[in-house]
Amino acid sequence: MTITLEAAERAIGAGRQQASKLGIAASLVVCDAAGHIKAFSRMDRAWLGSIDVALRKAKTSVLFEAETQALWEVCKPDAQAHGLESSNDGLITFAGGIPLRSSSGELLGAVGVSGGQVAQDYEVAQAASASFLSFNPNAVR
Amino acid sequence: MTITLEAAERAIGAGRQQASKLGIAASLVVCDAAGHIKAFSRMDRAWLGSIDVALRKAKTSVLFEAETQALWEVCKPDAQAHGLESSNDGLITFAGGIPLRSSSGELLGAVGVSGGQVAQDYEVAQAASASFLSFNPNAVR
Amino acid sequence: MTITLEAAERAIGAGRQQASKLGIAASLVVCDAAGHIKAFSRMDRAWLGSIDVALRKAKTSVLFEAETQALWEVCKPDAQAHGLESSNDGLITFAGGIPLRSSSGELLGAVGVSGGQVAQDYEVAQAASASFLSFNPNAVR
Amino acid sequence: MTITLEAAERAIGAGRQQASKLGIAASLVVCDAAGHIKAFSRMDRAWLGSIDVALRKAKTSVLFEAETQALWEVCKPDAQAHGLESSNDGLITFAGGIPLRSSSGELLGAVGVSGGQVAQDYEVAQAASASFLSFNPNAVR
Repeated sequence: MTITLEAAERAIGAGRQQASKLGIAASLVVCDAAGHIKAFSRMDRAWLGSIDVALRKAKTSVLFEAETQALWEVCKPDAQAHGLESSNDGLITFAGGIPLRSSSGELLGAVGVSGGQVAQDYEVAQAASASFLSFNPNAVR
Repeated sequence: MTITLEAAERAIGAGRQQASKLGIAASLVVCDAAGHIKAFSRMDRAWLGSIDVALRKAKTSVLFEAETQALWEVCKPDAQAHGLESSNDGLITFAGGIPLRSSSGELLGAVGVSGGQVAQDYEVAQAASASFLSFNPNAVR
Repeated sequence: MTITLEAAERAIGAGRQQASKLGIAASLVVCDAAGHIKAFSRMDRAWLGSIDVALRKAKTSVLFEAETQALWEVCKPDAQAHGLESSNDGLITFAGGIPLRSSSGELLGAVGVSGGQVAQDYEVAQAASASFLSFNPNAVR
Repeated sequence: MTITLEAAERAIGAGRQQASKLGIAASLVVCDAAGHIKAFSRMDRAWLGSIDVALRKAKTSVLFEAETQALWEVCKPDAQAHGLESSNDGLITFAGGIPLRSSSGELLGAVGVSGGQVAQDYEVAQAASASFLSFNPNAVR
């Protein structure tokens, strides 16, 4: 079971709508459950730096099956896995990456968003995730 | 002047239609005139190896403002720039990358396609390029 | 559906038996359908260089869903995808990587072997693959 | 004198038993005294991110001949070698990597474990290390 391009694009589309509503320009990516890119959009006027950040957020969420900001709790200074963020070619540990799961809870991939304030990136990623869940998450092959 | 996300996605959409018509599953990317990714789609069932190849084709076309197969003429053994393909982190020098230009000839980006036989990749990239040209290439900012 | 550690280790075990029979010391790897390592064994006295080659063989087989030597037919000089081997961080295009599939033909991963003469590596990989197929390839999660 | 595959696999097997007992799924690696991978197992359902972390833990333990968490004492902020963790392509400085030695104290390699809470990873690595020591550590070549 893996994510379809149709589901990935619907999630990105919902994220873009939310980004426009917030007045920001973002890079949005959906990767599959192995961290390989499935779909990507960079909105007009998004910072170039958002490309890599969005990709790393999605990858981070897949690698540890968690929202990116949750990972910070374990890898910040003095936490049990301090410095973990330097593994796997560099993780992103603030908000904007969210795992995408099937209705039965299986990891199917993740969405990553970058381009606005971090709280805005998170809102955009949440909109993408909500769209993914509502769009019959069984529509995978 | 740079490529819009709308134009990039139309080009990828046209490429995907052509890929489906040919019965292949491909990765398709559009990058901007600086070689930075603008939009990407991996069709369901495309080889994982197609991701990197499509990205490199688009980047190669931007870096030397040429169709990827044309670059081979200058970098093949015994040609003047033999071995050039190892520069820039590795170029792809067979067909599937095509520059995208404005109606006045300005370089706006490139499309890269991988997933089928090379001749098929080229057909898909041509469909994407044709769509881009017909879609009022002035619709850039 | 993905490969289990049990199935991966049985495949590697069968490969090692064949390697011992041939009198060679090899590195053997099984990766999953996304190219991520699942199990690895380096036999005593295997060349250090065999580690990377075995890993790349398995990854190459997953990325293009083919035996590694088959890929050479498309990427050798004058073939349609000449130079493809430099993509994806470097492919290996001689024998020793074989895709592992379910009984229904779905790609589950690949085995990669390096350490002997190439024909020997191929024999070892074939033994691993045969073991995988005979070991109820549905034993995946 | 170096570690044998038999000893490496026994250590990993003991670690896996402990991991199962703790109810976690981990990646486990044994590398030799030069930091080169000897054996690796990724248990079913382990996070993908655990692969790289386990490999780095084992490598870190070999590079500085110490348990990974001990290294933190010298490289944390204000310690004499502050920032050392960014050397050698990135070290891991929390628990889970343990050197493996012969009965006479010679460094033979290291085990690295990732997949659970850090304290659990350490327990698993300790089980692997204990098994290695009890298994006639002279059984090396």
